[in-house]
Amino acid sequence: MSEIETAKKLRNLKMIVFDFDGVFTDNKVYLSENGLESVRCDRSDGMGIEMLKKFTDIVLVVMSKEKNVVVQKRCDKLMLECYHAVDDKPIALEKLLDLKNVDIESVAFVGNDVNDVDCMRQVGLAACPKDAYSCAIDVSDIVLSRNGGEGAVREFCDLILNERN
Amino acid sequence: MSEIETAKKLRNLKMIVFDFDGVFTDNKVYLSENGLESVRCDRSDGMGIEMLKKFTDIVLVVMSKEKNVVVQKRCDKLMLECYHAVDDKPIALEKLLDLKNVDIESVAFVGNDVNDVDCMRQVGLAACPKDAYSCAIDVSDIVLSRNGGEGAVREFCDLILNERN
Amino acid sequence: MSEIETAKKLRNLKMIVFDFDGVFTDNKVYLSENGLESVRCDRSDGMGIEMLKKFTDIVLVVMSKEKNVVVQKRCDKLMLECYHAVDDKPIALEKLLDLKNVDIESVAFVGNDVNDVDCMRQVGLAACPKDAYSCAIDVSDIVLSRNGGEGAVREFCDLILNERN
Amino acid sequence: MSEIETAKKLRNLKMIVFDFDGVFTDNKVYLSENGLESVRCDRSDGMGIEMLKKFTDIVLVVMSKEKNVVVQKRCDKLMLECYHAVDDKPIALEKLLDLKNVDIESVAFVGNDVNDVDCMRQVGLAACPKDAYSCAIDVSDIVLSRNGGEGAVREFCDLILNERN
Repeated sequence: MSEIETAKKLRNLKMIVFDFDGVFTDNKVYLSENGLESVRCDRSDGMGIEMLKKFTDIVLVVMSKEKNVVVQKRCDKLMLECYHAVDDKPIALEKLLDLKNVDIESVAFVGNDVNDVDCMRQVGLAACPKDAYSCAIDVSDIVLSRNGGEGAVREFCDLILNERN
Repeated sequence: MSEIETAKKLRNLKMIVFDFDGVFTDNKVYLSENGLESVRCDRSDGMGIEMLKKFTDIVLVVMSKEKNVVVQKRCDKLMLECYHAVDDKPIALEKLLDLKNVDIESVAFVGNDVNDVDCMRQVGLAACPKDAYSCAIDVSDIVLSRNGGEGAVREFCDLILNERN
Repeated sequence: MSEIETAKKLRNLKMIVFDFDGVFTDNKVYLSENGLESVRCDRSDGMGIEMLKKFTDIVLVVMSKEKNVVVQKRCDKLMLECYHAVDDKPIALEKLLDLKNVDIESVAFVGNDVNDVDCMRQVGLAACPKDAYSCAIDVSDIVLSRNGGEGAVREFCDLILNERN
Repeated sequence: MSEIETAKKLRNLKMIVFDFDGVFTDNKVYLSENGLESVRCDRSDGMGIEMLKKFTDIVLVVMSKEKNVVVQKRCDKLMLECYHAVDDKPIALEKLLDLKNVDIESVAFVGNDVNDVDCMRQVGLAACPKDAYSCAIDVSDIVLSRNGGEGAVREFCDLILNERN
């Protein structure tokens, strides 16, 4: 995609679907001896989401394979719509497009690993953090300069906001 | 600001207002599946604060946008005055100056992101960690050599103590 | 071992024995003031294990010196057979070979430190993360390009899957 | 100190006093919103301590300024004698030398910050992690190649064990 096309896509986005682990986090999980899972998120990603919600009406959705509810907890705080324990992301994406009545060309998908690739191929704009797996980088229109959980989400939000200013 | 001016400001500081996330921390939040938030702080920052309290009478205040009480918990341990869940920092700063009866020229503000910028423009001396967002770096008189949560606060304390010795 | 030999070993593996700390983790332990231990694992390692279980019938076993049950908790989630609090790994490996009726030449051992070295010398294929101790690197047929807890396990899984495609 | 002298000191050590934060840890503290502190330690440091206890009769002591009991918890696991909440380390060291009846010339002190410096000056052998504060580096006979909490303790243990083999 040319820079001009990418800029146009960013201006016309109607929905962003984010993977969670490796995008909002560094793809790590902290596990305690009593079986409790934790993840590490970035405060500046939260600020990016907050600004995107304030200045645009883009629909923001998180879609994660992970069964653990920690994904839901982070989305609750950021007031993000969340689907977790999603085994087949392309099917879930299709349902979501129907539900929201959004054209797939005006959707962005931000992912980092093999189970995001099919969705990333289908949507209008695919993006990934710098440290995504190569299968995700290969299908991305935008490879962000920051790693997952290190401000990659904030960077993507800033790209959109700058394009619309 | 010239080096001589900066040195003079450091010698004459009456109050330091610190942002918390990204200054006392690496701007990350650890979130558990039961919804509990944690942050990562630096022991050497604590030692810097302790020395500053021992050898100077500078008023030390933490001012954070974050609603979570984890900010308060860290401030309790370091015996720092703490305002959290602050939505509008310039207004809170103005009230604080009145309350403490301090001239804004003798105040330093240490921040790292867009919601700190207005305060950083107004105070006598603005500083930020090395890994601050560019909007904060652009308005800083001192860009510290250490990252947030990696001794940036200690470094700022050492600058003041060295200047006063 | 030549590249051709290594590839052949990867194709014919019947069992992989993984050390845990320093392989599935960055060799760190998080300890709370109430004595609770946690470790940091990698989501992409989990995906590698899942694919290996889906596409091959290689027996996957974790063998750890560590007494703490946190090892077991991670293995439960990844549905991995787990032996922890193992003081003498060579003896445990011998028993395991008997139990599973597997020839040691078709076994891989992935370790990172001095107490893995004897097993690594004995098995058909020895591998270690990039940041393993030199004693483990010295006896490894494959030194992975990723660190422990940073996708080293996923990388090893990908090597096997690529070899078998 | 010449290399020959350092080697001799390492061979004749009777006691090692370790600071905790910044030596056994990366000098960070994880703080939860309910006020609970955690620290990050290194499994390989634990293995180093275990080998030192097995192959030598050097007295191993941890001495920390930190009030929080998390220091004690880690020492319990490693079966290390622990003094925490120590405000004046030189006084505590003097008492310890009396108690153990050890000559200060055969004592090593491993520290990382300003409150370790006086002890480091007094003992026979001073060591610090690579990322220690410059005040500690300046008084060290051995600057380890690893950071605190990243195997610095293991490296010091290995130095001693190698010297005695």
